[in-house]
Amino acid sequence: MKVLVTAFDPFGGEAINPAFEAVKILEDQIAGAEIIKKEIPTVFEKSIEALEKYIEAEKPDITICVGQAGGRYKLSVERVAINVDDARIEDNEGNQPIDTKIFAEGANAYFAELPIKAMVKEVTDHKLPAEVSNTAGTFVCNHLMYGLLYLIDKKYPEMKGGFIHVPFIPEQVIDKKEKASMSLANIKEALTYALKGAVENDEDITKSGGKIS
Amino acid sequence: MKVLVTAFDPFGGEAINPAFEAVKILEDQIAGAEIIKKEIPTVFEKSIEALEKYIEAEKPDITICVGQAGGRYKLSVERVAINVDDARIEDNEGNQPIDTKIFAEGANAYFAELPIKAMVKEVTDHKLPAEVSNTAGTFVCNHLMYGLLYLIDKKYPEMKGGFIHVPFIPEQVIDKKEKASMSLANIKEALTYALKGAVENDEDITKSGGKIS
Amino acid sequence: MKVLVTAFDPFGGEAINPAFEAVKILEDQIAGAEIIKKEIPTVFEKSIEALEKYIEAEKPDITICVGQAGGRYKLSVERVAINVDDARIEDNEGNQPIDTKIFAEGANAYFAELPIKAMVKEVTDHKLPAEVSNTAGTFVCNHLMYGLLYLIDKKYPEMKGGFIHVPFIPEQVIDKKEKASMSLANIKEALTYALKGAVENDEDITKSGGKIS
Amino acid sequence: MKVLVTAFDPFGGEAINPAFEAVKILEDQIAGAEIIKKEIPTVFEKSIEALEKYIEAEKPDITICVGQAGGRYKLSVERVAINVDDARIEDNEGNQPIDTKIFAEGANAYFAELPIKAMVKEVTDHKLPAEVSNTAGTFVCNHLMYGLLYLIDKKYPEMKGGFIHVPFIPEQVIDKKEKASMSLANIKEALTYALKGAVENDEDITKSGGKIS
Repeated sequence: MKVLVTAFDPFGGEAINPAFEAVKILEDQIAGAEIIKKEIPTVFEKSIEALEKYIEAEKPDITICVGQAGGRYKLSVERVAINVDDARIEDNEGNQPIDTKIFAEGANAYFAELPIKAMVKEVTDHKLPAEVSNTAGTFVCNHLMYGLLYLIDKKYPEMKGGFIHVPFIPEQVIDKKEKASMSLANIKEALTYALKGAVENDEDITKSGGKIS
Repeated sequence: MKVLVTAFDPFGGEAINPAFEAVKILEDQIAGAEIIKKEIPTVFEKSIEALEKYIEAEKPDITICVGQAGGRYKLSVERVAINVDDARIEDNEGNQPIDTKIFAEGANAYFAELPIKAMVKEVTDHKLPAEVSNTAGTFVCNHLMYGLLYLIDKKYPEMKGGFIHVPFIPEQVIDKKEKASMSLANIKEALTYALKGAVENDEDITKSGGKIS
Repeated sequence: MKVLVTAFDPFGGEAINPAFEAVKILEDQIAGAEIIKKEIPTVFEKSIEALEKYIEAEKPDITICVGQAGGRYKLSVERVAINVDDARIEDNEGNQPIDTKIFAEGANAYFAELPIKAMVKEVTDHKLPAEVSNTAGTFVCNHLMYGLLYLIDKKYPEMKGGFIHVPFIPEQVIDKKEKASMSLANIKEALTYALKGAVENDEDITKSGGKIS
Repeated sequence: MKVLVTAFDPFGGEAINPAFEAVKILEDQIAGAEIIKKEIPTVFEKSIEALEKYIEAEKPDITICVGQAGGRYKLSVERVAINVDDARIEDNEGNQPIDTKIFAEGANAYFAELPIKAMVKEVTDHKLPAEVSNTAGTFVCNHLMYGLLYLIDKKYPEMKGGFIHVPFIPEQVIDKKEKASMSLANIKEALTYALKGAVENDEDITKSGGKIS
C-alpha cells in the first residue's frame, strides 16, 4: 500500500510550518505502507494543482494532507470540507478570495474518505491527544481538503483521502499568549498513529466524536 | 414579510436555554417584518417535525432557528449544516445517534440561505460582538439547521433560512471556569439586529468572515 | 457611611475603560452608603497621588479602586497587591518600570481590607459571575491597589479598602478573538452588589474562593 | 554547588503528576551543579515538614520546588508566594483550609529568591515557552513555596529558592477540552534550562516579565 502525505509551507507570518516539519521526518514505512512525503504551496489554486500532479505521479492508495491549525490543543482529523473559499488573510501569493466556490460543479461539501474515528482512537490509545474536527476553516487547508475529496469523487474513486490539522509547536508560542502547542516529536508520533489507523482500518469504528456546537 | 424564529428548550444539564429566553422576548415586529416565535424540543427527529409543522402553519418568508453554543464568545451566524448526527451526549429523550445521516438522499451539506455577512455587520455596527461560524456541531442544532435547509431545498424553495448560535448568559457561567457569556439583554439586541440584517438584505455583502482553521 | 470608588482612564490602546464607564453610572447611594466617584490617571506614581488627594478630601470609610482586566470572564475581587512594578507596556505617560519596588519600606504584599468572599457571594447570589482573584498583575492596577493598602497601613488605619477588576465590555471584543466580555449594565449591577457586600459585612464569611494554581 | 529539586505526588484526581515525572528524570548534574531530587506529599502541613527535612539533610545552595499547574500553556517561574491557604479541593489527606495563615508571624508574602527573568530567558532562548507567573494559587503549591521562602528568611539566609509550575503532559488532556499540554521531554528540557539559569546567575537580569492584570 502507498500513502501520499502532503504538508504546506509556512504562512501567516510564521517562520515554519509544523505540519511540514513533522511530515518530512515521518518514517518511510508505517504499518507496512510506503509513505511518500511532499510539500504543497500555501496558495489557493496552486495547492490543488500541485496535489493532483503528485497523485498522478505516485498513484497512492491513500492521500492525507496535513496543515497547521494554530491555537488548537490536539491533533485533529477533519471530518468535512466545504465548497467555499473565504480568506481572512492573503495566501502566500497575495490571493484573498471571499465567498467563492472552489469547484462550481462540486458538492456543497465532501466528507473525509477515511476511518476518522479509528485514526483518533489509534492516537489516543498511545497517550497522545487527538479529536475529530468538524471544520477545516475556509482558507487554503479547507480548499486543499475539498480539492482532494473532489478529485476522489470525480477521478480517483479507488483512492481514500482526508486532512489532518496539527497544533503549533512550542517555539511558535513563545511570544504568544495562551496558545497551546505540541512538541514536534509528539506531532510526528501522533501523525504516525493516525496514518496507521488509516492504513489498518477499511471500515471506521462506531464511537462518538461529535461536538455540541 | 413574516419571519419564523425558533429556539430550543434547555439541554445538557442546563436549567435554562438562553436561546429560548432571548427569542421569547423579541419584539413582534422587527424592521417591518412580523416575528413569529416558537419553541422546539431538543430531540433529534422531533425537532425537524416540529419545525415543519410551524412552517406549514405560518408560511414564513424567512425561518431562523436559534440555539445555545456554550463557550462561544460572540453571537454566531452559522454558514453551513452537514448531513451527519454524531452526539456526544444524549438528547432530551435519550437518543444518541453516532455517524448517521440526517436525510439519506440529502446533500452532504447545505449552506445557510441568508445574507450571513450582512447580518453579522448589522450586529457589530451596533457595538455587539458577532461572527460567522463554519460549524454548528453535530448535535441537535446542526440537525435542525440541516433539516430546515433540506426542507427549503426540497419543498419550500421560496423560503430563506438559517441558524444562529448564542453564548451562555451570565447566570450559567457562575460555577464554570473560563466560560464567556453575553447578557440576555445583549443577546436580544444582537438577535434583533441579525434579524434586521436578514430582513433588509436580499443579497449578501462581500466581506471576509472566514477562519484559517 | 461614605465609600470612595475610583476608576482609571483608558489605556493600552483601548478607546474606553469599562471600569470608568461603569463607575460613573453607579447610584449615588448603595446599601445606605454615600458613593463618591472619581477618575484616576493610568500613570504609575500619579495614580497614588491622585488617590491620596481624594482620600484626604473625602475621608471615606471604604475606598474601592476599579480597573479593567481584559480577558477575564467574571468580575474579580482582588485578594492581594504585591510590592513590585513590572510593566509589559508603557503607562499613559510613557513610564515602564521593571522590577522596582512601589514603596521601599512597604510590606512585600498587602491583603485587601475588605470582606472579599462576602462581596463575591453578594454578586453571585444575584446571578452575575464573580470570583476572588489572587493577582492584580504588576501594572498600574496592582500599583494603585498596593498604594491604597499601604496608605491604610501607614496613615488611615480606620479606612477599609481594596480593588475590583472588571472584564471588557462587548464593544471592546468585536475585533478580538476569543475574548470574554460583560455588558456595561451587568458590570454596573455586579459592582453595586460587590459594594453592598463591602458595606454590609464587617467580617468576611468563610467560603472557599481559592485557586489551585 | 548543590540544588535540591522537589516535586509533588499526584493530586486532584490525576493519576500522575507531570512535575514529579519530569523531576525524576532530570540529569544528576546541570551546569556543573549537583541535582538532588525528592518527592513531596500534596498535603498542606506535611509538605513543608518534608521539605525542611530534606534541606536539613542535604544543605543545598538552591532549593526549587516544582508543581503541576493544569491548564497553563508554558513553564512558569513563580514570582511570589502569599501567606494564605484557601483550598478549593481537599489535599491528599482530606485537609481543606480556608483563609488561614501559613505562618502567623510570617510576612504577607515572600518573593522568590531566584533570578526568575534569567531563568525564563534561558528556557525561551532554547525555543521552549516559559513565563513569569504572579500567582502560585492558594493550594499546596503556594503553601510549599511560602514555606520554603519563610525558611530561607528565618533559618537559611544563605540558601536561594523558589517555585516552578509545569503544564499538564499530553496524556492528561486526552479527555479534557481545550487544555494545553507540554511533552514530558520538553518539560524536562525546560526545567533543565531554568535550573541552569538559576545556577549561573547571581543577579537577575532587567527584562519585563509582568502582566497587566
